[in-house]
Amino acid sequence: MDERVREHAEVLVDWSARVAAGDDVVVSVAEDAHDLAVAVAAALGERGANVTTLYDSEEVSRAYLKGSESRDGDFESDPAVDLAVFEAADVYLRLGGGRNTTATADVPAPVRQAYATARQGVREARMGTDWVSTVHPTRSLAQQAGMAYEEYQEFAYDAILRDWETLAEEMAEMKRILDAGNEVRLVTERDDAPDTDISMSIAGRTAVNSAASVAYDSHNLPSGEVFTAPYDTEGEAFFDVPMTIEATRVRNVRLVFENGEVVDFAAETGEDALASVLDTDPGARRLGELGIGMNRGIDRFTDSILFDEKMGDTVHMAVGRAYDACLPQGATGNDSAVHVDLITDVSRNSRLEVDGEVVQRDGRFRWEDGFA
Amino acid sequence: MDERVREHAEVLVDWSARVAAGDDVVVSVAEDAHDLAVAVAAALGERGANVTTLYDSEEVSRAYLKGSESRDGDFESDPAVDLAVFEAADVYLRLGGGRNTTATADVPAPVRQAYATARQGVREARMGTDWVSTVHPTRSLAQQAGMAYEEYQEFAYDAILRDWETLAEEMAEMKRILDAGNEVRLVTERDDAPDTDISMSIAGRTAVNSAASVAYDSHNLPSGEVFTAPYDTEGEAFFDVPMTIEATRVRNVRLVFENGEVVDFAAETGEDALASVLDTDPGARRLGELGIGMNRGIDRFTDSILFDEKMGDTVHMAVGRAYDACLPQGATGNDSAVHVDLITDVSRNSRLEVDGEVVQRDGRFRWEDGFA
Repeated sequence: MDERVREHAEVLVDWSARVAAGDDVVVSVAEDAHDLAVAVAAALGERGANVTTLYDSEEVSRAYLKGSESRDGDFESDPAVDLAVFEAADVYLRLGGGRNTTATADVPAPVRQAYATARQGVREARMGTDWVSTVHPTRSLAQQAGMAYEEYQEFAYDAILRDWETLAEEMAEMKRILDAGNEVRLVTERDDAPDTDISMSIAGRTAVNSAASVAYDSHNLPSGEVFTAPYDTEGEAFFDVPMTIEATRVRNVRLVFENGEVVDFAAETGEDALASVLDTDPGARRLGELGIGMNRGIDRFTDSILFDEKMGDTVHMAVGRAYDACLPQGATGNDSAVHVDLITDVSRNSRLEVDGEVVQRDGRFRWEDGFA
Repeated sequence: MDERVREHAEVLVDWSARVAAGDDVVVSVAEDAHDLAVAVAAALGERGANVTTLYDSEEVSRAYLKGSESRDGDFESDPAVDLAVFEAADVYLRLGGGRNTTATADVPAPVRQAYATARQGVREARMGTDWVSTVHPTRSLAQQAGMAYEEYQEFAYDAILRDWETLAEEMAEMKRILDAGNEVRLVTERDDAPDTDISMSIAGRTAVNSAASVAYDSHNLPSGEVFTAPYDTEGEAFFDVPMTIEATRVRNVRLVFENGEVVDFAAETGEDALASVLDTDPGARRLGELGIGMNRGIDRFTDSILFDEKMGDTVHMAVGRAYDACLPQGATGNDSAVHVDLITDVSRNSRLEVDGEVVQRDGRFRWEDGFA
């Protein structure tokens, strides 16, 4: 076995999910994630955890959903077995990595939505576990990223096999600044792109040090971002990192906020997809997340939000739903059916301020060498 | 998709498992059974059943069991998730078909046994569902059978895609004869093999018309046998069909019974494996099953008990555990930790008698043309 696969499994089981003896662990295995599943099973056997493996095949899902069309996509609410699985589980490890990122492309959107809507309780039970989502680098993901397979493997393991403890300490510094702050402002001034000058309140909100571990309320591997739930957004921002929204490529998005809401928007490509997101519900026009990417193992965009939003020297903002972890106990933040991240490069001609003090300039944080 | 895969799925879902709308169906998918899983999911979607897919990978199992060796193979009894899955399921469909039939060859027997022993409750919950076990024809199974891949596919689909309704009617005739009978005698006299002359009581026992459907108490696809639970066996029998017992190839077994128990035995190859089976417990020296193979879609032995024991013109006897379905309500039959089938060719120089009347001679049943 590739030693990196074994290391990936050990980071996932020990650092990310904190699996202990006796834990009931559900592992879902995408079509091409077999090798990682083998390594994870070995680690779980060593730790004395129990394991149940689910087959998470997009082709199987497509067949089921297309089959259901003859019944007008009428799905039972929270079917008993799936609910029982996640109610009984302590830990859920999702091993992504299929063979075709567009395997469900011909399933009509209403069928997908009906299926998702019918499974809200299953989703809540799953979110109630110590869940972690990761991917095994596959040829299909390499293709999505426009990379050769071995090149993509190196990219993915650079992102995943970090010194998480050290990165968590560095990110704790950013969390302290955001937790103590009241207002964040991001300014970028570049010749080749529209300016960004956007401000938002973060008073009373708690930042998450997303250090790829449930111990940090962080559920992605890789991770490496600090995020919070802003409100009262004002100004305009330009997002230059291309991404895929609802299977549509979207590039160079511009959003204008007034009184916390998007009042104007544009995109060089994919503007219809962006409009559809913003029209979902009132919450879709407000920010739900501000995130600071701090994983410098990620050095390029690969059209995968799991990686892109954590890239060092980027900042992302999501329209839509806010995460509870950022809110005061019992409070409700921005609510929406969507949560769509938009990313901007801050490696040059940029500054991020908290309460008027520059925290990051041209990609350098104020505690780093080279910060001017 | 290969039309045969779609037909296989439909026979499995409709004839075998009798899936209805609203059923909670658990489908376990072996490493190379993906295509059949896709076809099964489509059928379940059309029927309006719920589906949960498990990944049944022998390599994942091996990794988990080998990992556990560092903890001396100490397994929790009936882990919560697996138990919950089968307690909540109405139907369990096992889609076999791995990539290597010897994928767990280096897992020590005590580790396997400890794992199996710890999961008795899970197994009982699984047996409490409407379960059906089938295989997707894979290259690995073709290799086990000593056949080319396409040749093996044709063999497997000939066995699986039968006119089950017609075969069930024919087998019902054999069931009537066995249910009404008190004693069965099998005699074979061949120049090239030791004689068989063995008698057993079946009074008070009920035969199962194993027509590959839960509606017939039959849980294998393919099936095509009628079996009962004999006792008070006397005489000797020769089993000329090679088979694999505990990973050992066993050929040309001879058993001698007195007062219902094996008092002498021999095997041309694999005698140690046979001895180990017979020494498991007292019940391992008594017959638990007499089966009449009636699936003429199976025309050769492929070293797979799922197919071999159902082959037309064969009779098999199993030492060890009897099936409850053959016993009067509440009665206990022969009990043992093992159930090992031994098969004999009855296509020539043979006769099967029930209460002194010949029911099958040289492979022809008495209701068939050519019965002399």
